[in-house]
Amino acid sequence: MKATAIAHPNIAVIKYWGKRDIPLNLPSVPSISVTLSQFFTETTVEWGSSKDQCTLNGEESSDAARKVFQFLDRVDADRPYCRVVSRNNFPTAAGLASSASAFAALALAASSAANKNLSPRELSLLARQGSGSAARSIWGGWVQWQKGINSDGSDSYAFPIAPQDHWDIRIIVAVVSDQKKKISSRKAMNLSAETSPFFQAWCDTAEEDIRIAKEAIQNKNLNQLGRQMEHSTMKMFGTMFATQPSIRYWKSDTLSILDKVETLRETGIDCWATMDAGPNVKILCLAKDAEKIQTAIDENCIVSHVLSAGSDARII
Amino acid sequence: MKATAIAHPNIAVIKYWGKRDIPLNLPSVPSISVTLSQFFTETTVEWGSSKDQCTLNGEESSDAARKVFQFLDRVDADRPYCRVVSRNNFPTAAGLASSASAFAALALAASSAANKNLSPRELSLLARQGSGSAARSIWGGWVQWQKGINSDGSDSYAFPIAPQDHWDIRIIVAVVSDQKKKISSRKAMNLSAETSPFFQAWCDTAEEDIRIAKEAIQNKNLNQLGRQMEHSTMKMFGTMFATQPSIRYWKSDTLSILDKVETLRETGIDCWATMDAGPNVKILCLAKDAEKIQTAIDENCIVSHVLSAGSDARII
Repeated sequence: MKATAIAHPNIAVIKYWGKRDIPLNLPSVPSISVTLSQFFTETTVEWGSSKDQCTLNGEESSDAARKVFQFLDRVDADRPYCRVVSRNNFPTAAGLASSASAFAALALAASSAANKNLSPRELSLLARQGSGSAARSIWGGWVQWQKGINSDGSDSYAFPIAPQDHWDIRIIVAVVSDQKKKISSRKAMNLSAETSPFFQAWCDTAEEDIRIAKEAIQNKNLNQLGRQMEHSTMKMFGTMFATQPSIRYWKSDTLSILDKVETLRETGIDCWATMDAGPNVKILCLAKDAEKIQTAIDENCIVSHVLSAGSDARII
Repeated sequence: MKATAIAHPNIAVIKYWGKRDIPLNLPSVPSISVTLSQFFTETTVEWGSSKDQCTLNGEESSDAARKVFQFLDRVDADRPYCRVVSRNNFPTAAGLASSASAFAALALAASSAANKNLSPRELSLLARQGSGSAARSIWGGWVQWQKGINSDGSDSYAFPIAPQDHWDIRIIVAVVSDQKKKISSRKAMNLSAETSPFFQAWCDTAEEDIRIAKEAIQNKNLNQLGRQMEHSTMKMFGTMFATQPSIRYWKSDTLSILDKVETLRETGIDCWATMDAGPNVKILCLAKDAEKIQTAIDENCIVSHVLSAGSDARII
């Protein structure tokens, strides 16, 4: 009645923004991501304990604990008290949303500890209910999370579209700010869906982004993938900007790095940028170019990490 | 057969982006602007000369001259040779598009020199054909340029919606870069209309921006006007970002100043930002707050100018 699981964070290359169902975390758009290898969340769940107890990175946090136990209620509404110990091998300030790896690891550890033998698809469906992007962190490598059409969310899960060793790609995470953002992505995306005049067009054009990106991944065409990733990113931020009140996560160094990425491309280095609900920039490039790019952007970063495609969530 | 005219540049508060007819400069959206007082273009046209001759800011520029003489052909297809001498009292690096004041002054000077007694509405229609935003610089103070529906453009002209002394407003122009932009607004807006998935929604929501901004100007409600101006601005940039390839005029200091404007607002100073096809920021505020705001933003500017609402184009 105890299990430990590991799951990795992921970066969306075709972005997720907006929900068609808020309580179930059903997305308004399909998305594609790449899972990252060097960073992970490790979570142990003890199914049956004297009381509900939750330790995250060595600390007891009541806010996070509430979300964790609500999630365990989804695994089993009649569950016993549980003990959860979770830690990330990366700092919060690493510029990566940890909720994806956290809920993927929790879904796997909790269902194993409860002796439920869930398939990866079932795990993806479960993890999604904790945090949308966690649906993708069940898988390593290149992953698609399909929007689905069912109102109960039963067809809104992720699946691999290429294995992790498919392509020797690097993702550079350029951290330009470690300040807490003013508005959470959860709140911001709901506000966008409600008030942005661009939200409908954002949704209507997502399938085409998926089609082009998927083709690019299958053909290992970084230029095609990068171009579509930047387009999806810029559409997402355009949708945010037009939200009322406007949502603007960028900082001045976000733009300095975008300028540098553009300059690097002009000098023949194939590299492409994306951002999520925050000011940090993630750069997609070939393994051979990673060091040169990291050097070029470093003066605008607090820290930068070079990561490769990661593996599936797993029991250890 | 010689006349000298003055016209002032203007800043759009409800933005112009995209054309429903490219050769005629008919806009896809209506816009509202405020004309600026301290800066102007002064243009002399001599109708009848030994050859076509054009001096801009003391220099003969063949590129600009071609546009000027094409414009004079619109005033009179059978015109004689003309001599045009034009100068701005502000440097190109002042962060203001000079084409608005330039074509407004040229329209007035040329039509006067040719002894055509045009009404302001006719002047606005004529100036528009040189540069869209020039339609608005015929008038001082607060000006609306209506989109019109006629295919010949006969109803796409500007008119005042409040006189220049209506409201003691200041416009701070914060210049963050004097580099030439990579893509002209003329090219960029056509590319947006062709490829941005947000262009239709941009057009569909413009009339509502006009209605709210007009009401705000009439009621001297800076909070309401500023909010709508920022929304119109963010929609315009969102539309640009989603253009393929993406159009991004902002520099890192553009964002630093936006952050400062937001911070100033949080401390109770009513100020609001807008940008055009470039990285410079224009801040709308009450006269009493202008100095404080200028001090707050100055470290991120090459130079900043505090301007007030300007007057009509006129013969001098």
